[in-house]
Amino acid sequence: MNRIDGRKLDQLRPVKITTGFVDYAEGSVLIECGHTKVLCCASVEQGAPRHVPEGTGWVTAEYSMLPRANRERSRRDISKLKLSPRSAEIQRLIGRSLRAAVDMEALGDYTITIDCDVLQGDGGTRTASVTGGFIALALACRKMVAEGWITENPIRRCVAAVSAGIVGDAPMLDLCYEEDSHAMVDLNCIMDEEGRLIEIQGTGEGRSFTIEEQQELVSLCAGGIRQLIAKQKEILGGCL
Amino acid sequence: MNRIDGRKLDQLRPVKITTGFVDYAEGSVLIECGHTKVLCCASVEQGAPRHVPEGTGWVTAEYSMLPRANRERSRRDISKLKLSPRSAEIQRLIGRSLRAAVDMEALGDYTITIDCDVLQGDGGTRTASVTGGFIALALACRKMVAEGWITENPIRRCVAAVSAGIVGDAPMLDLCYEEDSHAMVDLNCIMDEEGRLIEIQGTGEGRSFTIEEQQELVSLCAGGIRQLIAKQKEILGGCL
Amino acid sequence: MNRIDGRKLDQLRPVKITTGFVDYAEGSVLIECGHTKVLCCASVEQGAPRHVPEGTGWVTAEYSMLPRANRERSRRDISKLKLSPRSAEIQRLIGRSLRAAVDMEALGDYTITIDCDVLQGDGGTRTASVTGGFIALALACRKMVAEGWITENPIRRCVAAVSAGIVGDAPMLDLCYEEDSHAMVDLNCIMDEEGRLIEIQGTGEGRSFTIEEQQELVSLCAGGIRQLIAKQKEILGGCL
Amino acid sequence: MNRIDGRKLDQLRPVKITTGFVDYAEGSVLIECGHTKVLCCASVEQGAPRHVPEGTGWVTAEYSMLPRANRERSRRDISKLKLSPRSAEIQRLIGRSLRAAVDMEALGDYTITIDCDVLQGDGGTRTASVTGGFIALALACRKMVAEGWITENPIRRCVAAVSAGIVGDAPMLDLCYEEDSHAMVDLNCIMDEEGRLIEIQGTGEGRSFTIEEQQELVSLCAGGIRQLIAKQKEILGGCL
Amino acid sequence: MNRIDGRKLDQLRPVKITTGFVDYAEGSVLIECGHTKVLCCASVEQGAPRHVPEGTGWVTAEYSMLPRANRERSRRDISKLKLSPRSAEIQRLIGRSLRAAVDMEALGDYTITIDCDVLQGDGGTRTASVTGGFIALALACRKMVAEGWITENPIRRCVAAVSAGIVGDAPMLDLCYEEDSHAMVDLNCIMDEEGRLIEIQGTGEGRSFTIEEQQELVSLCAGGIRQLIAKQKEILGGCL
Amino acid sequence: MNRIDGRKLDQLRPVKITTGFVDYAEGSVLIECGHTKVLCCASVEQGAPRHVPEGTGWVTAEYSMLPRANRERSRRDISKLKLSPRSAEIQRLIGRSLRAAVDMEALGDYTITIDCDVLQGDGGTRTASVTGGFIALALACRKMVAEGWITENPIRRCVAAVSAGIVGDAPMLDLCYEEDSHAMVDLNCIMDEEGRLIEIQGTGEGRSFTIEEQQELVSLCAGGIRQLIAKQKEILGGCL
Repeated sequence: MNRIDGRKLDQLRPVKITTGFVDYAEGSVLIECGHTKVLCCASVEQGAPRHVPEGTGWVTAEYSMLPRANRERSRRDISKLKLSPRSAEIQRLIGRSLRAAVDMEALGDYTITIDCDVLQGDGGTRTASVTGGFIALALACRKMVAEGWITENPIRRCVAAVSAGIVGDAPMLDLCYEEDSHAMVDLNCIMDEEGRLIEIQGTGEGRSFTIEEQQELVSLCAGGIRQLIAKQKEILGGCL
Repeated sequence: MNRIDGRKLDQLRPVKITTGFVDYAEGSVLIECGHTKVLCCASVEQGAPRHVPEGTGWVTAEYSMLPRANRERSRRDISKLKLSPRSAEIQRLIGRSLRAAVDMEALGDYTITIDCDVLQGDGGTRTASVTGGFIALALACRKMVAEGWITENPIRRCVAAVSAGIVGDAPMLDLCYEEDSHAMVDLNCIMDEEGRLIEIQGTGEGRSFTIEEQQELVSLCAGGIRQLIAKQKEILGGCL
Repeated sequence: MNRIDGRKLDQLRPVKITTGFVDYAEGSVLIECGHTKVLCCASVEQGAPRHVPEGTGWVTAEYSMLPRANRERSRRDISKLKLSPRSAEIQRLIGRSLRAAVDMEALGDYTITIDCDVLQGDGGTRTASVTGGFIALALACRKMVAEGWITENPIRRCVAAVSAGIVGDAPMLDLCYEEDSHAMVDLNCIMDEEGRLIEIQGTGEGRSFTIEEQQELVSLCAGGIRQLIAKQKEILGGCL
Repeated sequence: MNRIDGRKLDQLRPVKITTGFVDYAEGSVLIECGHTKVLCCASVEQGAPRHVPEGTGWVTAEYSMLPRANRERSRRDISKLKLSPRSAEIQRLIGRSLRAAVDMEALGDYTITIDCDVLQGDGGTRTASVTGGFIALALACRKMVAEGWITENPIRRCVAAVSAGIVGDAPMLDLCYEEDSHAMVDLNCIMDEEGRLIEIQGTGEGRSFTIEEQQELVSLCAGGIRQLIAKQKEILGGCL
Repeated sequence: MNRIDGRKLDQLRPVKITTGFVDYAEGSVLIECGHTKVLCCASVEQGAPRHVPEGTGWVTAEYSMLPRANRERSRRDISKLKLSPRSAEIQRLIGRSLRAAVDMEALGDYTITIDCDVLQGDGGTRTASVTGGFIALALACRKMVAEGWITENPIRRCVAAVSAGIVGDAPMLDLCYEEDSHAMVDLNCIMDEEGRLIEIQGTGEGRSFTIEEQQELVSLCAGGIRQLIAKQKEILGGCL
Repeated sequence: MNRIDGRKLDQLRPVKITTGFVDYAEGSVLIECGHTKVLCCASVEQGAPRHVPEGTGWVTAEYSMLPRANRERSRRDISKLKLSPRSAEIQRLIGRSLRAAVDMEALGDYTITIDCDVLQGDGGTRTASVTGGFIALALACRKMVAEGWITENPIRRCVAAVSAGIVGDAPMLDLCYEEDSHAMVDLNCIMDEEGRLIEIQGTGEGRSFTIEEQQELVSLCAGGIRQLIAKQKEILGGCL
């Protein structure tokens, strides 16, 4: 079966990562996965939310689409006075995933907020946000050490994410919007560098799916994430 | 390993389902899974949202916790002017899951809203909402046929849900709050009566988890869901 | 004149009170007056609002209808980003009424919030909330003493409420929804155990009413409240 | 007993009514009761809300305090994103009361909104709003007839309101803020020109009160309202 | 060219200023410019916002239209849950302008809020708010000195404002609503007593305008402001 | 006097304009003025708001800062449930300015929304939004003609904007953030290609300013705008 853009079933879209896309954030990355473009900025602020044990830090995320990131313009959340429920769900996922990368005691009394703003959306914006958000987070942590705010880099492992889905009857990796809108099943995996799962979310959009199909999609994701983490390491260099 | 409440690792909590708990909803159920109590009401309204093809129907869900459903009182959403992000995420999940049970063309130009209000929360409220919500939905559909609003029952399959998790190193089924708050890994499955997945969501809360562990949790869920669907069928009788 | 449900003009609907309907609240009651069902939960929290003199406590109430408590589904407040004005009015009334039962100095530096959530509404939900809310409040106070949080029970008097109205030309006690929707005059009384008024609210819905009619409605209410307070005392036992 | 401002127990504060205080409203009145000043504007708009039978009209009210109407500045509702619950309660009362003055069929397919904005509050703002709002409403109706929008004046009766209360042990009429803040019991009556009740609201603020006390307060109000309605008729002239 | 109301091109509308229109505000003014009526109240509160250097004060403003200030009724901000963007813009302008009149160190640790509520709007409400707001501010400052809250009057200069515009091809001063709605160019100036600019805002509504035209409008404003400041000084007397 | 970045007093910052930065908007531009980066997207939608005469179109703008566009992270509007008043003011300005470029009858029954999202803010974001927004608008109009949605290009003139200010005592063009935060006077001009004003806004931040100073700032702006419009024409080519 041929994919819309000629990719093989287990092939990622081209990934382009531009660090330092904006100047002021402690860490910033523009990640492009095919036509999807997400600006990820990590901001370090002193103090941590109340629910966190004293002396340990926190990592959280916010996710938003620019109004014209998509084929049709959508109204801004503020004009509806309501955070988009989809954004609410996604930013909770990004936050949970990135916290899995960090030792909160080593982070100390700081909060790092990862803002993921989708400049252009062509499918896979939540997984691109995790993959890019991790780099912004790592850059911010490196800066915290360099500036002497903390003594030890709190990053413990690389974290990346990708989707897979069943279109027609073919399982395939890293769906673009066109594929995603025809997918029967859609599954996102977030994994660490040892290929262990941090989060898995799968949905039968048009039909239910077998446990075997689920497994096959996880395997596809595992392959993609291995490549994405290699890319992360290449960008971040030895001094992760 | 002994569970807090003496259950076996693959044992569900006692499930009690009271249909017709309130009088006015087209379908209503109070579902109790252990100490968790959720009131599920299905309301039928004419018309369907704009994004739905003409002549087909829609199923949607809303989820909310009463302020004192939990060990500590929480403020109402309205006093914060903000739908709880957790509720937003959960009600999207319930809606997607229950739509998988229904033939929208047979439903015709109607919207069914499943309100899931948690009277008491002791873990597993989202999965109880799916399992109970399905019964409320099926009762409402039966009433629609009985009243002559539609000619054919649009329910196509039973849908139920349960969680499993890893506590300590033991995978176990249907976590109560106490277990859930110590779980390393937490996974929810929603399946149909043929044991196929409709939705899967797994999260490493304290650590990442292997693909094998994920599989084992899915198997535990599959066993629990089989029992829950048997219960649903018993309650709904032959005339599903 | 015959009433819809065969009651006498001065007869209450059957009242059923289930204490401990939920486990976690310091006091909880499911009160049923005919088909009206209200879950009343009392939550104790340390500290009191700023407008209260130092060292004294506070009692407040919140009131809400579940979306399908009524014959037609209503949208949740949060989806309109607006507390229903009717709920705002009612919860102020409940709070004022229950404060009249409590010695705030004996309560000390605590706030008790009475959440009244209407599971099913068939008229008289605000008065049922006061009558049931009082029991939840008393149970919570008893627990505070039992747990040693305070030394003296701050409850000073029983408080209960009921409505009366003029339907056709007949004054009658404790209107159900059907009667209420045809009532010319509708009046709510909240009284203490000595038959003294704490609050009175009367409205001419279809016509104005004479001072004599108003008196007659108050007398009807006084009779009903006497029975409700007897019921409260029976449930709470000697150790009020 | 001497009152703060030397009035007799059954004496109203001086009332000053300035019609046409603003130019554009179909009816407008600045009503001053002692130091209380409320601007009441009646606005006529075509069409009626959906819940109203076709061809009949509607009267509604909005009530608000300017931020510095009181001894201390209060924040505007909009900066809290929340209609003050007190305002919500009061504007419902004003609306119900003024609807009692109008024949909705004669009003036809129009909505009249009475905006009551408190420029200065010294107690009794809600009753001043009803008394002044009635005049604004009557002026607007007169204009509707004069302009030929409707053929028959839909006003059926005069409506006015006043408060009474028990301060110390003395029942007294028309409390100013200073009296109100020390009152044990506070009661508002809204009556028509035949001395019949349209609405009654009484609250024991510091203690409960007997049915006899309640009666005495109603009598005081009845006396005050008779004078207020005489004033209304004087201003509106024969052509009510 | 004749103006609608017979004024000369460089002639202000009649200005009427009533101080002490309400009793409780530390300074209050009803300013009327032609048919425009704005109630300006200055409220003094202890403390200053966080962004202000310790020991210095702050002056801020809020602006709002009553619903029936205009020819058509407009909905209240709170019913739209949104501060009108026009009000947001105007109150920022008023605040900035009045801060220019005050020595914040002499004001000390106080915040003065100027509430400008438009009772009737016939054009020029923002400039009337500045001119009237200044007087309310000065009265409040005088009171602060008289009460001994501060030792030195922090007012440093008079500030007033007026608009000018081009209607047809004629530049003219102080547009009323009717003129404003036909203006090609509309320009507001805020100046101090030495004729220096504090703020200028000009907009080509129907066409762009030359630098020379802009100059001519500023000159017209300068003339008007000179008269307004004379009026302010007359009202405030020698003891500014 | 030396400027922070070595520019001459009348020298613009380097301007870089990237068209087509995102794919889906009918017109899109990333404009960079020094370190300021604004993404401007023009979206065409059928229909026009109600206040517009039938058959004519509308142009409107929205402006927002990404949370980490600045030196410090700011909270998103949606988390405060409130459009930033500064954004409200700015987007009204952008909308007014860009409408001046368009013949609304030639635009026909369409609305064009210009979204200006600041990716990085180093001063002059509102003027960069106007200058860049004009190009996005012109590109969208060109596309509308090319696609045959309208027959005639509705753009009538180029529109651009720049700021000038007085820092110390030196008037200078196009302030960066550092300069802006020390400016005594800050003035924005929006002009068309004939050097005529569309909008002027000047504020004395630290002191008032003379009419002569105001003139000098306008002259500086006029010079800068001439260059910006030349740049716009170069990018848009002959076929404006």
